[in-house]
Amino acid sequence: MSKKLTERAEDYSKWYNELVLRADLAENSAVRGCMVIKPYGFAIWEKMQAELDRMFKETGHQNAYFPLFVPKSLFEAEEKNAEGFAKECAVVTHYRLQNDPDNPGKLRVDPEAKLEEELVVRPTSEAIIWSTYKGWIQSYRDLPLLINQWANVVRWEMRTRLFLRTAEFLWQEGHTAHATKTEAIAEAKQMQDIYAEFAESFMAMPVIKGVKSDSERFAGAEDTYTIEALMQDGKALQAGTSHFLGQNFAKAFDVKFTSKEGKQEYVWATSWGVSTRLIGGLIMTHSDDLGLVLPPKLAPIQVVIVPIYKGEEQLAAISIKVNEMVKNLRANGISVKFDDRDSFRPGAKFAEYELKGVPIRIAIGNRDLENGTLEVARRDTLEKKTLNQEGIVSVIENLLEEIQENLFSKAINFRKEKTTVVDTFDEFKKVIKTKGGFVSAFWDGTEETENKIKELTKATIRCIPNDTKEGNGQCVFTGKPSEKRVLFAKAY
Amino acid sequence: MSKKLTERAEDYSKWYNELVLRADLAENSAVRGCMVIKPYGFAIWEKMQAELDRMFKETGHQNAYFPLFVPKSLFEAEEKNAEGFAKECAVVTHYRLQNDPDNPGKLRVDPEAKLEEELVVRPTSEAIIWSTYKGWIQSYRDLPLLINQWANVVRWEMRTRLFLRTAEFLWQEGHTAHATKTEAIAEAKQMQDIYAEFAESFMAMPVIKGVKSDSERFAGAEDTYTIEALMQDGKALQAGTSHFLGQNFAKAFDVKFTSKEGKQEYVWATSWGVSTRLIGGLIMTHSDDLGLVLPPKLAPIQVVIVPIYKGEEQLAAISIKVNEMVKNLRANGISVKFDDRDSFRPGAKFAEYELKGVPIRIAIGNRDLENGTLEVARRDTLEKKTLNQEGIVSVIENLLEEIQENLFSKAINFRKEKTTVVDTFDEFKKVIKTKGGFVSAFWDGTEETENKIKELTKATIRCIPNDTKEGNGQCVFTGKPSEKRVLFAKAY
Repeated sequence: MSKKLTERAEDYSKWYNELVLRADLAENSAVRGCMVIKPYGFAIWEKMQAELDRMFKETGHQNAYFPLFVPKSLFEAEEKNAEGFAKECAVVTHYRLQNDPDNPGKLRVDPEAKLEEELVVRPTSEAIIWSTYKGWIQSYRDLPLLINQWANVVRWEMRTRLFLRTAEFLWQEGHTAHATKTEAIAEAKQMQDIYAEFAESFMAMPVIKGVKSDSERFAGAEDTYTIEALMQDGKALQAGTSHFLGQNFAKAFDVKFTSKEGKQEYVWATSWGVSTRLIGGLIMTHSDDLGLVLPPKLAPIQVVIVPIYKGEEQLAAISIKVNEMVKNLRANGISVKFDDRDSFRPGAKFAEYELKGVPIRIAIGNRDLENGTLEVARRDTLEKKTLNQEGIVSVIENLLEEIQENLFSKAINFRKEKTTVVDTFDEFKKVIKTKGGFVSAFWDGTEETENKIKELTKATIRCIPNDTKEGNGQCVFTGKPSEKRVLFAKAY
Repeated sequence: MSKKLTERAEDYSKWYNELVLRADLAENSAVRGCMVIKPYGFAIWEKMQAELDRMFKETGHQNAYFPLFVPKSLFEAEEKNAEGFAKECAVVTHYRLQNDPDNPGKLRVDPEAKLEEELVVRPTSEAIIWSTYKGWIQSYRDLPLLINQWANVVRWEMRTRLFLRTAEFLWQEGHTAHATKTEAIAEAKQMQDIYAEFAESFMAMPVIKGVKSDSERFAGAEDTYTIEALMQDGKALQAGTSHFLGQNFAKAFDVKFTSKEGKQEYVWATSWGVSTRLIGGLIMTHSDDLGLVLPPKLAPIQVVIVPIYKGEEQLAAISIKVNEMVKNLRANGISVKFDDRDSFRPGAKFAEYELKGVPIRIAIGNRDLENGTLEVARRDTLEKKTLNQEGIVSVIENLLEEIQENLFSKAINFRKEKTTVVDTFDEFKKVIKTKGGFVSAFWDGTEETENKIKELTKATIRCIPNDTKEGNGQCVFTGKPSEKRVLFAKAY
């Protein structure tokens, strides 16, 4: 625990990797590109899941579960979707192993057990779900169908990074079916709003809501609504997407319904997802050179109490006081850990909880017992204060709220600072190269320009923001007329 | 909805399949042997998960997540485990699809994208987890390691049935590491107790706790502790198992720790799991010819309220009353649905909720509004009573408890009736053939006898019960001396 983390300013990427490992969040596994999510990292995911699941259910969605495997013939039915994912699919071809006659004690794939049709391990579930919906939807009375699934998916990425891009990841994927285009678009936008609310209110991570350009759209979608966050190194992170799928999947899987007027019509679709990638975003939004900084609303441990003592007698006396405090804090819904391990010194414990991003640390020693005091340290500002034990529960409650708000406003200020409006391409290149962050610029709307800018600067269009002010201008690259400023950035 | 279910007495297996489909619990998918768990079925699983997860955490376990894939070389490391699962493994051999040059618009596996080492889709996770634990365990201070995972697993079964046996299923798998044999055995037994408590207190499904015979033990385990339930057709269901794994996996993956005395020792292991199979057990323990019967503690909807009305005016008046009632019931933690759809008649709704096993149905009509009454119907006994609206919340609370208890005691009585002590093999055969259920008989302890009995009767040893009375007798088949009675049954 004693070795310091690489500093962010020195090597941001190295800092991130070290932090994920040392804070016990996740690690690489024996399987190429797949991670093990360790208990502390998984506890953050469980907190995220609980809030998102509540928000989905409050808006009328139900959970279900669909198969891990997609038969190849279903997978290829929606062509654009298939094309988009074909290059990164893990494929099951056999269903049995047998003893390897050439290597005693080893196994090999049984050549007799070849599947007639290969099975794709789901990279996303539109195909298997829409082939199922065909049996569920006959009439307008069966609509809307509002379903979500919590699942693992596999995309055989060549360059992986813990949480940000892994071959297998955990996510939720909503798949809804509607009678009208208007309703489906409203659903897709509603889910974008829910993602934004979750990111800002729980993760304390500000996001820009917008729509993707054609080239960045989900394979098989008509429109992809996105939330984009800005990391401390000036790179953007696509944090969640919600797709209006039009009738593409309904047509591919022949899903029609009888309307109120008695007509046969194709169903309108949406899908939307967020993944364990959010944990990467959480880390890169708030953490510092000492380690993780967690917003109280998602921290597995909100308060840690460390006793400062000499000998068992002092510890016993402190413990009586602390146990009472722990009980009161828990009764108020605050998660507390009392770390009375005698195998570590207080200094080592302080460093450990700083590394793990626990929002509030309380230290209490013998002198404090006499004085009725304790020391409270904030992880976000590193401030320490000596306070009275009396009334500590409401002090802690308020402080947790304050920390949550402070993290959000710090992140908002950072983004403001790192968002630059530019009107010339020289300026564009300079900002991307030196300052980073979001660049707001006019764009002529063509894929050609988008690609050239990407080639020259590595910046991509993150989104066309929802709240962009209409206004005519000239494309920063071609000078052609443009109706809107869009947001460019280098991205994860 | 109007067509009746096949009756249990006529064809139990057909009744089960129809019920699962018609109660909207699950259905077969486009993938051989894999099921789609529909929202109503998944809601039951979510309730099960929530209770089990709480029980695991209360006993010090943490959740984590390990990869879906197991490299073949890790999979084969623990030989018995590998041998036990090799015949039913889905294997990923390729990581990319490409356009099929012979079939425009179709995809094929890209022959260039063959994996160097095949990946087994986990049938269980001991191998991948113990290869990870090697990095986590150095000292006795790192023990015990108490971890659980909620995950999907794949076992390529040839004969599948919804919930009971599917190629992919959802489960939890606990994997713990300990410094001593005693501690590991205590952990394995503790988890058996937790499973039994969950089965009896929440599922209202009585279970026998016992240990498996050698031939029924988990591949790679030293001992398998099981809970065995009895279904209405007289067949047993293995509902959960907890394994003492000895040092087998520690040796296979070289996981050693430094003891307090400074010695290098192999770690002791357990693993334990229950799956979506429990839903099959729940169905076959309580349901009847009208449909599902759910114990209140796991019912997604505990109370349904159906208005009996003519015209919108009456509905409006009833709704005012009902909405107030709904609010009060929910405030007391009761899940309620008010079904005011006007597209279905009350009779159709009654049949639907009977089919779906909602524990309590309340009907309320115009006359009831005048009289301050309502009609309460119990799903378990089908009794109806007219009661006062006043004080209804506590009446419902008590009734839910009563239903929970009634289901359990009915199931206990059924099992008692269907458990037969036999001392001759003629009697054994006769009971298995005609009456079914558990047969308690002396056994000489050999695998040979066990196999012969299985050949002749299809009955297997379900377990050697924990609370079996010691006592000498003679094996029901060979007449050789035997120390204990064991439980035989035909099983799912």
